[in-house]
Amino acid sequence: MNAQSNDKLIVNCIPVGDQDKQRFIDAAGDVPIEFCGDPNLFGDMKVKADVPEALRGKATAVLGNFDPSLAGQFTNLEWLQTWSAGVDAYLKPGLFAQDVTITSATGAYGQAVSEHMIAMMWALMKNFTLYVRDQTAYHWHDEGTVLTPNGATALVIGTGDIGSHFARLAKGAGMHTVGVRRSADKPVDGIDEMHGFDELDTLLPQADVVALSLPRAADTHHLIDARRLAMLKKDAIVINGGRGDAVDDDALAEALSRKAIRGAGVDVFETEPLPASHPLWDEPRCLITPHVAGGDHLASNTARIIDIAVANVRRYAHVEPLQDNAHR
Amino acid sequence: MNAQSNDKLIVNCIPVGDQDKQRFIDAAGDVPIEFCGDPNLFGDMKVKADVPEALRGKATAVLGNFDPSLAGQFTNLEWLQTWSAGVDAYLKPGLFAQDVTITSATGAYGQAVSEHMIAMMWALMKNFTLYVRDQTAYHWHDEGTVLTPNGATALVIGTGDIGSHFARLAKGAGMHTVGVRRSADKPVDGIDEMHGFDELDTLLPQADVVALSLPRAADTHHLIDARRLAMLKKDAIVINGGRGDAVDDDALAEALSRKAIRGAGVDVFETEPLPASHPLWDEPRCLITPHVAGGDHLASNTARIIDIAVANVRRYAHVEPLQDNAHR
Repeated sequence: MNAQSNDKLIVNCIPVGDQDKQRFIDAAGDVPIEFCGDPNLFGDMKVKADVPEALRGKATAVLGNFDPSLAGQFTNLEWLQTWSAGVDAYLKPGLFAQDVTITSATGAYGQAVSEHMIAMMWALMKNFTLYVRDQTAYHWHDEGTVLTPNGATALVIGTGDIGSHFARLAKGAGMHTVGVRRSADKPVDGIDEMHGFDELDTLLPQADVVALSLPRAADTHHLIDARRLAMLKKDAIVINGGRGDAVDDDALAEALSRKAIRGAGVDVFETEPLPASHPLWDEPRCLITPHVAGGDHLASNTARIIDIAVANVRRYAHVEPLQDNAHR
Repeated sequence: MNAQSNDKLIVNCIPVGDQDKQRFIDAAGDVPIEFCGDPNLFGDMKVKADVPEALRGKATAVLGNFDPSLAGQFTNLEWLQTWSAGVDAYLKPGLFAQDVTITSATGAYGQAVSEHMIAMMWALMKNFTLYVRDQTAYHWHDEGTVLTPNGATALVIGTGDIGSHFARLAKGAGMHTVGVRRSADKPVDGIDEMHGFDELDTLLPQADVVALSLPRAADTHHLIDARRLAMLKKDAIVINGGRGDAVDDDALAEALSRKAIRGAGVDVFETEPLPASHPLWDEPRCLITPHVAGGDHLASNTARIIDIAVANVRRYAHVEPLQDNAHR
């Protein structure tokens, strides 16, 4: 960061009330800060932050997800704080002409995403996807055996904010939690035993539930593919709440149709929206939700995003390293 | 119990392997015990225990749910141990000519029923009943706001085996648990604060989730009626896993259709099967399951039923009081 305080300009597109506005102003100190958030738009992950044209060339910092196709207009940008957990859209080489530090709001979504994932696990264990279908047909019908998390093993792949939250909820339901992460030596709250990615093939056959909360990265593309799905127990449940491409969706549909696994809960897909022709739609033991786990659907998210942004604004104003609790 | 040991005959219709068979024989001591369980039938709550005709008049004790219409043939019966949690079918006045002690296997179902109830809560909080419907229509559609159990209050009505289990699971999901039972002075595992039934009207407006696990009894008939449903928060969720008649199903359907409450999970109904004409079927935020929460659907149930029956057989052989951990 080369600009002097008086050259800096923070443009905050997160809509805030008076109290939070003051927190941002206090955190920014000498650095000027403009507020241009639209309270009606915030939170919907598809909506973009609207930075007024006149400010685009002046902004050295933006809080909010602006349209990546406008990146070329942000010629002075040093820092972008997204309100999303993912930042993929801004990582395309050449998108910005200059170096831009990008921090995400991933820490704000751990609770919402992990709750969505554990709810998916419960629903699949208790055959609810089948019972809802029966209900629409006024069909009083016993769908047979159910599963219990009590004493079962959850394999948590990616133990950042989401994975750690998930593990704590899983333990609350009586599960044993096994974590997989890059640095297996770092303990994580809620994880009973931690392993590295190199042990994945040994761990998969022992898992009752495989919970994925990975960021998109080249080396996790199709981490769960046909070969690894074939290693799972017949009663295993796969939940993907991280990035869509960590699971090969075609192979997953195939495993479900052959009843090679028990069920799957999927909120993120390789292609979104999931094409109507994709076979996953027709799998009755697949629970599909349209990338909603990490949205604005939980009121507490907004408060957490604001906390993360305020803390980084303070660091920016003090020329300290910006923080990003990315899940990995 | 007036019969001498040598007049007694236990007829065990619970299908058991060799190991469990020996446990029953050891527990019965001097009392003869006949085994006539059919492993193919056990567990389905609708199936009846098949006591051979020749044994019906001789049996002083039966383990298993025989057809109540045959009760008149069990002229020497002193004790019936059901494998169900409910015993209503055997309580009809005049069903037996003589005094019969009836003990249920209610303690075997706490885990299964409470898990079903907590899974219903999660599914309704995260809009899964709507997402499954969308899925059947290949419809990628955001269903909006979700709820979280974290920091929410669960009002647990009936804190026996099921209610206590439910409360522990609710706490594992971050909830505050308030119990309602007849004897409010008895603490129950998992319940943060206990109240008597006289305080129900004060507690209902504070509840985010109302979880019912009551046995059938005259004074709990329509405990949750139109008047009490009207006391609930607009975002409240009602779960009934106890007895169907504790909730007025017509009033519940009405409250759901007016969006006076958020959702309902119902496994037990006043009339079963729920008639196809009942308006509950059409409520998208009602999750209907066909009285399956307490069935044989969890393998661990069977083991628990056997444990309960063995312990009571030992008491019967020793002419000690039989036990029934009925939920209340």
